[in-house]
Amino acid sequence: MENKYIFVNDQFILHTEAKLHVSDLSIQRGYGIFDFLKTIDFHPVFIDDYLDRFYRSAKEMNLEPPYERNELKSLVRQLIEKNNIANSGIKLILTGGFSEDGFTITTKPNFMMVQSPLNIGNESFEKGLKLITNNFQRQVPSVKTIDYLQAIKTWPQVIGHHADDILYHKDGAVRECPRANIFMVKGKEVFTPKTDILRGITRSKVLSLETAHLNITERDFSLEELQTADEVFITVTTKNICPVLQIDGKPVNEGNIGEITRSLSVLLQQLINKDIDSKNGF
Amino acid sequence: MENKYIFVNDQFILHTEAKLHVSDLSIQRGYGIFDFLKTIDFHPVFIDDYLDRFYRSAKEMNLEPPYERNELKSLVRQLIEKNNIANSGIKLILTGGFSEDGFTITTKPNFMMVQSPLNIGNESFEKGLKLITNNFQRQVPSVKTIDYLQAIKTWPQVIGHHADDILYHKDGAVRECPRANIFMVKGKEVFTPKTDILRGITRSKVLSLETAHLNITERDFSLEELQTADEVFITVTTKNICPVLQIDGKPVNEGNIGEITRSLSVLLQQLINKDIDSKNGF
Repeated sequence: MENKYIFVNDQFILHTEAKLHVSDLSIQRGYGIFDFLKTIDFHPVFIDDYLDRFYRSAKEMNLEPPYERNELKSLVRQLIEKNNIANSGIKLILTGGFSEDGFTITTKPNFMMVQSPLNIGNESFEKGLKLITNNFQRQVPSVKTIDYLQAIKTWPQVIGHHADDILYHKDGAVRECPRANIFMVKGKEVFTPKTDILRGITRSKVLSLETAHLNITERDFSLEELQTADEVFITVTTKNICPVLQIDGKPVNEGNIGEITRSLSVLLQQLINKDIDSKNGF
Repeated sequence: MENKYIFVNDQFILHTEAKLHVSDLSIQRGYGIFDFLKTIDFHPVFIDDYLDRFYRSAKEMNLEPPYERNELKSLVRQLIEKNNIANSGIKLILTGGFSEDGFTITTKPNFMMVQSPLNIGNESFEKGLKLITNNFQRQVPSVKTIDYLQAIKTWPQVIGHHADDILYHKDGAVRECPRANIFMVKGKEVFTPKTDILRGITRSKVLSLETAHLNITERDFSLEELQTADEVFITVTTKNICPVLQIDGKPVNEGNIGEITRSLSVLLQQLINKDIDSKNGF
């Protein structure tokens, strides 16, 4: 990544040069928001949805983004062109800015865009995921803050259990994974929690899928109910739909990838292809 | 502050030069811990207590401090000498370090020490504080993490109510202020919450005060009980003891500073003076 560009505030600079003064409120107080979108074949997929959320998060946290939507889209395009990475993740970060007293928001936020290579293959889908559960409620759940204290603190348990990710629940009520949403299939019904979660863009796309035989809706459910689901999958920008085959050591669907998960994955890919073909915003 | 020194990782550098690469996990994921001690007349007050907590916080968050206690004390002393600020706050920050994937702890933490002038006068004591309450439980409450999302997000309400600080409660159970602990006086009993709070160093010093006529203990209490207290005060490194004269617009002790608050403040000052005289660690 050393010869790649990062955008910081008002300029493209080389990866190695991208630094922030330590008085920034992200370093001092963990204060900031971000968003993360992907490019496929140089096209930023569903960019308007991600920017909608980026601006909503900023507003909720009293941070004023330095660019309007069209300026920001133009900067994303310039970043893609400069770095020449076809398939990538692009992270937009907006921090609390430099603060003289290390607490009060006094200056404009600092804004960054970082691009990294990303390949979404079939491999991770076919392998599926093992989750461990963790009783935790994200603070300010509707906002994509930079707060991942609990996830990173808990990660040694993921490694220790040879698992792939964490599933948060609040006293038994299923919420989300730290960086993904969760879905459960029961017969012809597909549910995803609706309370105190981040509304993922991939989640919203799955909720929007039109199928003749399935009913896909928001509804809260318990860990107990999840353990008896026919199929479980997560949605996440970096993997689209990915099957969950084990939760806390117990197999889901006898450890097999379910047919509904497969069919929704195909439908989601069609939606993504349609967005790529539309050349929306570019 | 431009001509003052900040210590970053392994060197003293000028304030303006103190920068971190944006791949640090504090910027990417709000991951880090810190501690904050004060110097009076070039003496770091209760430094061993603050370093105890600093090392405990680091361990709890799986971060390995780059210096042992005696090395760290030596660096604190060098910082005080270089900057030549008699009365100050010194902040030690330990972040998740640089991370290639922006999530996983892969390198050593980044360590910083920042010194700022601090004057503890009688003025803030005599003025007292107005608090507004906020239903919120800090995550990882026993650790001094850099997470102040809720406090900074809620700060416009503090300003809007012409208040001075926030008091967190969890569904009515009093916890703490974002950067201070709270005490309540009822007759000859003095209480401070014991559940899911940060164990402040000034709090622990007040709990250790020996008085013939008072019983100072840890005990949880409700907002309702707090509203009927004889006296309320907070403890915080930057102000020692400071009276609370109003909570959510309602006066405490008819808006007067209580006698027990005054007497405990004198006893605490004696304890601080004793520590300064001891020249402990320096």
